[in-house]
Amino acid sequence: MRAIVVKPPKPGVEFRDLSQAIRHGSGTVKVRIIENGICGSDREIVRGELATARPPEGKDWLVLGHEALGVVEESKDPRFKPGDLVMPINRRSYHGKCLNCLVGRPDFCEANEFVEAGMVGMDGFMVEYFYDDPKYLVKVPPGIADIAILAQPLSDLEKSVEEILNIQRRFIWTCDDGTYNCRRAIVFGSGSTGILMSLLLRTLGFEVYVANRRDPLENEAKITEEAGITYINYSVEGLDRLKQMGFDLVVDTTGASASLIGHEVEMLKPNGVLGLFGFPSEGALTLSNEVIQRFIYKSNVIVGLINGQKPHFQQALAHLAQWKATWPGVVSRLITRVVDVNDEKEVVQVLNRKEKGEIKVKIKWGQ
Amino acid sequence: MRAIVVKPPKPGVEFRDLSQAIRHGSGTVKVRIIENGICGSDREIVRGELATARPPEGKDWLVLGHEALGVVEESKDPRFKPGDLVMPINRRSYHGKCLNCLVGRPDFCEANEFVEAGMVGMDGFMVEYFYDDPKYLVKVPPGIADIAILAQPLSDLEKSVEEILNIQRRFIWTCDDGTYNCRRAIVFGSGSTGILMSLLLRTLGFEVYVANRRDPLENEAKITEEAGITYINYSVEGLDRLKQMGFDLVVDTTGASASLIGHEVEMLKPNGVLGLFGFPSEGALTLSNEVIQRFIYKSNVIVGLINGQKPHFQQALAHLAQWKATWPGVVSRLITRVVDVNDEKEVVQVLNRKEKGEIKVKIKWGQ
Amino acid sequence: MRAIVVKPPKPGVEFRDLSQAIRHGSGTVKVRIIENGICGSDREIVRGELATARPPEGKDWLVLGHEALGVVEESKDPRFKPGDLVMPINRRSYHGKCLNCLVGRPDFCEANEFVEAGMVGMDGFMVEYFYDDPKYLVKVPPGIADIAILAQPLSDLEKSVEEILNIQRRFIWTCDDGTYNCRRAIVFGSGSTGILMSLLLRTLGFEVYVANRRDPLENEAKITEEAGITYINYSVEGLDRLKQMGFDLVVDTTGASASLIGHEVEMLKPNGVLGLFGFPSEGALTLSNEVIQRFIYKSNVIVGLINGQKPHFQQALAHLAQWKATWPGVVSRLITRVVDVNDEKEVVQVLNRKEKGEIKVKIKWGQ
Amino acid sequence: MRAIVVKPPKPGVEFRDLSQAIRHGSGTVKVRIIENGICGSDREIVRGELATARPPEGKDWLVLGHEALGVVEESKDPRFKPGDLVMPINRRSYHGKCLNCLVGRPDFCEANEFVEAGMVGMDGFMVEYFYDDPKYLVKVPPGIADIAILAQPLSDLEKSVEEILNIQRRFIWTCDDGTYNCRRAIVFGSGSTGILMSLLLRTLGFEVYVANRRDPLENEAKITEEAGITYINYSVEGLDRLKQMGFDLVVDTTGASASLIGHEVEMLKPNGVLGLFGFPSEGALTLSNEVIQRFIYKSNVIVGLINGQKPHFQQALAHLAQWKATWPGVVSRLITRVVDVNDEKEVVQVLNRKEKGEIKVKIKWGQ
Repeated sequence: MRAIVVKPPKPGVEFRDLSQAIRHGSGTVKVRIIENGICGSDREIVRGELATARPPEGKDWLVLGHEALGVVEESKDPRFKPGDLVMPINRRSYHGKCLNCLVGRPDFCEANEFVEAGMVGMDGFMVEYFYDDPKYLVKVPPGIADIAILAQPLSDLEKSVEEILNIQRRFIWTCDDGTYNCRRAIVFGSGSTGILMSLLLRTLGFEVYVANRRDPLENEAKITEEAGITYINYSVEGLDRLKQMGFDLVVDTTGASASLIGHEVEMLKPNGVLGLFGFPSEGALTLSNEVIQRFIYKSNVIVGLINGQKPHFQQALAHLAQWKATWPGVVSRLITRVVDVNDEKEVVQVLNRKEKGEIKVKIKWGQ
Repeated sequence: MRAIVVKPPKPGVEFRDLSQAIRHGSGTVKVRIIENGICGSDREIVRGELATARPPEGKDWLVLGHEALGVVEESKDPRFKPGDLVMPINRRSYHGKCLNCLVGRPDFCEANEFVEAGMVGMDGFMVEYFYDDPKYLVKVPPGIADIAILAQPLSDLEKSVEEILNIQRRFIWTCDDGTYNCRRAIVFGSGSTGILMSLLLRTLGFEVYVANRRDPLENEAKITEEAGITYINYSVEGLDRLKQMGFDLVVDTTGASASLIGHEVEMLKPNGVLGLFGFPSEGALTLSNEVIQRFIYKSNVIVGLINGQKPHFQQALAHLAQWKATWPGVVSRLITRVVDVNDEKEVVQVLNRKEKGEIKVKIKWGQ
Repeated sequence: MRAIVVKPPKPGVEFRDLSQAIRHGSGTVKVRIIENGICGSDREIVRGELATARPPEGKDWLVLGHEALGVVEESKDPRFKPGDLVMPINRRSYHGKCLNCLVGRPDFCEANEFVEAGMVGMDGFMVEYFYDDPKYLVKVPPGIADIAILAQPLSDLEKSVEEILNIQRRFIWTCDDGTYNCRRAIVFGSGSTGILMSLLLRTLGFEVYVANRRDPLENEAKITEEAGITYINYSVEGLDRLKQMGFDLVVDTTGASASLIGHEVEMLKPNGVLGLFGFPSEGALTLSNEVIQRFIYKSNVIVGLINGQKPHFQQALAHLAQWKATWPGVVSRLITRVVDVNDEKEVVQVLNRKEKGEIKVKIKWGQ
Repeated sequence: MRAIVVKPPKPGVEFRDLSQAIRHGSGTVKVRIIENGICGSDREIVRGELATARPPEGKDWLVLGHEALGVVEESKDPRFKPGDLVMPINRRSYHGKCLNCLVGRPDFCEANEFVEAGMVGMDGFMVEYFYDDPKYLVKVPPGIADIAILAQPLSDLEKSVEEILNIQRRFIWTCDDGTYNCRRAIVFGSGSTGILMSLLLRTLGFEVYVANRRDPLENEAKITEEAGITYINYSVEGLDRLKQMGFDLVVDTTGASASLIGHEVEMLKPNGVLGLFGFPSEGALTLSNEVIQRFIYKSNVIVGLINGQKPHFQQALAHLAQWKATWPGVVSRLITRVVDVNDEKEVVQVLNRKEKGEIKVKIKWGQ
């Protein structure tokens, strides 16, 4: 059984033939992998830069991969039949006894009692097949199999937006027509996360801006145009202009310098919220006492956003289906490259570096 | 300007050439009608049986129709451009000063300060064109133009389910995986409303049963099968069997005898809720003191469900797009007949009686 | 160790000397009883009329009593010290694995996995002393020791009102000044439950009516006057008059005939809610299809209300303290009789029948 | 009619005899002032340091005072009778058309359409009598007249805690007994605001710490001891120790240097929230990218907290009554000085500087 294996904290990645099948929880459903998605965290692990990465207990290696689409091959669970397309959930409670874990929400675990497939203490999904627990499998409609791999990264954003909207329930944040159509949002970062977050907020009715410090690539320009999103090159527009505009919702997906966050705080309108998604890799945030005074006066909120769970995977699949019917052009542009798993050299290459213009790269195993 | 006109409380329906354009609110957007949907209330008005129906102030007639898809022909509002597909909202606040009206939710108006297009005090949408207020127009994605007409009836159900889920937030009603997958729902009635409600609940993750007192028609059998919904002929299964099964959610869409509701109450599991959608046309509900004791002991709820607003139209369109990509067969079966508006005789016929197997009938004006 | 013992389903009650101490859960805190309250359910058990009453597993008898004030005598738990006044919680999860039990809310248990002190499968608190689990003990401020016994019955109502207000969060139910001051509530029944519910709703800002089918007793008249509550003799005013007035909230605490509930439904204003507290002992509820139509049209709700948990005991004690400072006269009238536990004959008498004008009767054990 | 008058932005304060009565809104209720409270903002205005302070339109002066207890002298409103004790609300919507203003919540005004009595564009309450609108008057129970003046500052904190608890509804934040008893909170600052916030959080069930950079004054030591609050001198304990302890809720009430806030962020446990109440007067907040990473990973929130409205005044009065019955010693220590309005020199003095150990100073007008 072939698998793509890493040995955190050491850098490197390799194909390996496993002698023993991977099995999670009850393991009553055998899943054959169709394809995996690659994201920035995979590359951080490969480069030996993700501090939290670690193998499962008792091993010094780990199967990589937390984005996967598979097909059921065998099942002892009546809810799953051979042939069903499925997607495994990546963060799972691990003997979690905190209340949020008990109700199926280890994204809000307070006791650090969870593992993360392909990252933290649990084998991932870049493997020919594995046995899984039905609790952590989500069914995928065949009609969207081509883009379903996006549901994992999108699930994190579904959870993030759900959390933001829950926070905003403390006052009336809907408009005088009951919708969010009067609310203005800006997403910083136009990578995979930034684009998906922009599409999601647009879907929910927001007026959406997506900002980066360069002009849009052709793909970005076409996606944002079709979806009615405004792309902003803030190295041209200037951050002051954005502070003057004011936004009800600012989401940072850059994972770049923390210093940008200080500017983002100043863009908030009264009752506005700043969501931080993606860990800043350097720098520091500085806010003067006057900026904090205005933050308080405006009842603003800053919230840290992480990890979607099963309901968010389901919601992500629903939104992908919706987008396929309403924004066919957008959807056709989100998968920017497909690599055959048998082309091992190329697989290792895409696991090592991000390409210019990349939104989502897939590794194809079969079907 | 041709229109289909009624004179409630008198029965009857006729085509008429209007000398003056219909104009609602600011009237800054001119909308040409592409098609109308027909629902049971239209037929009740035509038969003179809808007690609440009345013309706008100062007139003895009313344009019929509350389900419509149109195209923008002229617009003074920057948010709408000629060629945009739009759908008008039917219930509107009318000088509404209650707080729910002020925040765009006349579905929860407490002061009876609203009108309803084609029904109560406001001209409807069975007319060549009309001028409308952008506040009450929802954009329709071209990719789902063929089924978009369903968004109006579906909007009422989106609101109903939103209301039910809000009511159920008083305890933990999600399952141990954070979803609704462990919750069992039954919908009584397999007409247009019952089918759409079943599909919606399935979409949200419920295990769904739809019940009628006869075997399923072919169309119903195929729709429910593709969507993973179980059809029950309760005249065969028996209501007692359903009481033994127990349901977390029961929705009545029959509009038939109130006596059925008594049985539905007894089907509720602990923390379960019974939603009443559609007005029972006859009979009475009777509950013994023992049944009420169990209702209390189980923390059950009964709630009356009506009318969706702009956010629910938007959500309905999103779900229709999702269904088109995931359940193409289902979606192709929901429009059971299209009548040309120029075939006046046939139009009058479909406005007078429901066909066997009908889900949604459309009157086509143009395109 | 003396205790008051019953043998459901048999009628009767007796004093008994127990050879073995009563111990619940961890049993790390020894509690000496100061006093017990008596409520209608105690009398139903004594009369052999409470169908759900049963001894703990393996016994044919049960200590009676679910309302108690005690003092800590010994404690192995740092949160409790000898001399602390405490109140034990009566409904407890019993190996409960449903999510609501896991988060400390067995009032919403879906699996019937709970016991109830002095009633269902668990010894009660009419006993000299017992050993309890700190999880189920609430501290009582000494300043309100005289009325603290009311916190148990009040806790059920705190939970009920919390539940109702949660249900009403689905729309704007607060007034244009952010309060509930414009909302009109009526409570049917002026027994202990009805009076406490009326006081609680008044405290929360509602305009409150309390209704019974007779003139108020002197005590009731004085309590309602001081608290600004209007007493209504509905056999004089007539139920039709109340239907014309309309109420945003109707609470039934009568436990009398189910037929009254039908009238209460017709008293609801738009968005209004009917809370059923107390099991109707006879009769049936009948609603015509027209009444149900109006119920739906008005987005009304009927909800079954039961059992408060630890947060509600704490909230009840807070409200009793508030009432003591703001309504001293009211508070002085709520305990209508105190019986010495050594006067066994009188204890048995008060356990057998309710006195006219009774609000709360206490059995005094010591201090 | 005597009044205490200021002329922002100029420093200074003076007694003045007004020729014309002060009238707000409908002005149907005449209120004679019994006493005023003094808070830090009053002194900032007197010192000419509150940047937002301004007289009502068309005047160059302003009656000072936003904390007041009064008695109704005349009333054209049936809800208020001569002799009723009342408290006026200080922040009021001023032609506010934003949705939060329309529903009586100008604390969440998004359009800056409000005035603030004695501060921003509206005459305050340090005046013999004035005519007010019943919408902005709250009734005060006579039994707590001695401490009722605290309800204004407490109202801001009631709103703050309500907002925090609403934010925390996005996951399960209650403990396994349904309460907040397992949650640890720390309040920075032991002035009037810090003490009241600590008492409020204790009342709601939190384990509470209050922190300052000095040893407690005698008054503070006695108040915190009686209420079961732990006082921490963080210049001795060290901020690192507090970061190791970890807190579920941190509230900053210091209004001191923004640099403290950076430390407070690091004290948050997973799912913890930092509430900022009181504007930092100097310094800057700096957070390294690692601190922000942990903030995100822990799903933390920072929220700005301001201004209570009518429901919060009512809740504040309820809590004061509760405290009077449960913590009589605490309550007796909260008013640290009473000044007679006729002693003008002393009044001017207390309006100019805060005394050591001051919690609340009252100016007494009569009764």
